Amino acid sequence: MLKLYFAPGTCALASHIALEEAGAAYTTERIDFKVNQQNSPAYLEINPKGRVPSLVTDRGVLTETPAMLAYIAQSFPQAKLAPLDDAFAFGQMQAFNSYLCSTVHVAHAHKMRGTRWATEESTFADMKRFVPKSVGAGFALIEHKMLRGPWVMGEAYTVCDAYLFTLAEWLEGDGVDLSTLPRVLDHRKRMSERPAVRRAIQEERG
Amino acid sequence: MLKLYFAPGTCALASHIALEEAGAAYTTERIDFKVNQQNSPAYLEINPKGRVPSLVTDRGVLTETPAMLAYIAQSFPQAKLAPLDDAFAFGQMQAFNSYLCSTVHVAHAHKMRGTRWATEESTFADMKRFVPKSVGAGFALIEHKMLRGPWVMGEAYTVCDAYLFTLAEWLEGDGVDLSTLPRVLDHRKRMSERPAVRRAIQEERG
Repeated sequence: MLKLYFAPGTCALASHIALEEAGAAYTTERIDFKVNQQNSPAYLEINPKGRVPSLVTDRGVLTETPAMLAYIAQSFPQAKLAPLDDAFAFGQMQAFNSYLCSTVHVAHAHKMRGTRWATEESTFADMKRFVPKSVGAGFALIEHKMLRGPWVMGEAYTVCDAYLFTLAEWLEGDGVDLSTLPRVLDHRKRMSERPAVRRAIQEERG
Repeated sequence: MLKLYFAPGTCALASHIALEEAGAAYTTERIDFKVNQQNSPAYLEINPKGRVPSLVTDRGVLTETPAMLAYIAQSFPQAKLAPLDDAFAFGQMQAFNSYLCSTVHVAHAHKMRGTRWATEESTFADMKRFVPKSVGAGFALIEHKMLRGPWVMGEAYTVCDAYLFTLAEWLEGDGVDLSTLPRVLDHRKRMSERPAVRRAIQEERG
């Protein structure tokens, strides 16, 4: 049985949606960021990075959203969540997920997690002011160059869609001008109507 | 025929080493950062992100180091650069690469690329001062929790080793205390002696 460690409002939602889409048997455990549970000794045994998500499998723990999404897609091939038999198409899927992880999510993290990269209050304020621009630039590239439609990779729904939806949920909080992103917003709306997405969100809020 | 766009001293070296290890037929083209060639109209047609590396294939372009490394491993299975038939082990490999991409490389980037996340000179100075600590913390986790030895994934050499070597080459420039990282340094030395690594470095310098 798989077990997903998550916190609400984090990128763990992407893997949560993928598990629902896959029809996987899994349980979840919520990590309480308010009491810094992600850095508790018990959780650091599971994930020494002190972050969510973590996915406990019968072989051990997996971390890092792009790795977990590919693992879920490969473990539940009947769900067709990735082009598993086409190395180039799989690479394109992974390139999209890697861009979200290392560029878009990192830009977003400068709003609240400045202590990862600096120490001064004036730096944190400067970083926060810049978030609408940096996250906006990442989403502009997605809007104009990456999102093929109707799904990220085109006609086929993949784990990329779960990941894009998760980060697109942060757009308002990041102060990005939504009027410039009609295709991303249309994608987000269609995602929000999928039963698997509704179930994952409901479970995280419950 | 594959074509790798690279710049010396960048993470493109990881894919370059992987191509050499795979015995791939490929060409390279150097992008000159001194004249901002990565943002030239011609290069932006290849990679609209204006970054290296990019890998041109007969199907199209791939970007993002973790995606490219997995693609190279999958495209040249005889080179055994990844556990291709084991979704969990493949996921562990990908988790390591994703950590390098989204945490360790991002920490390093705050030394010279602060304009991605802020605007003030005082911010850039604060970021630069913090790099030894943030990059050092990333490598400490690798030293103590992630690098199994002799290779990253244990007995089997994988694309993780090419990627770790590439980022470990930046340690001195990032001001990290090398005395705390004996296992990473031993790995780096053994990597530097591999013929494929020597060829890739030679070609980038040539």
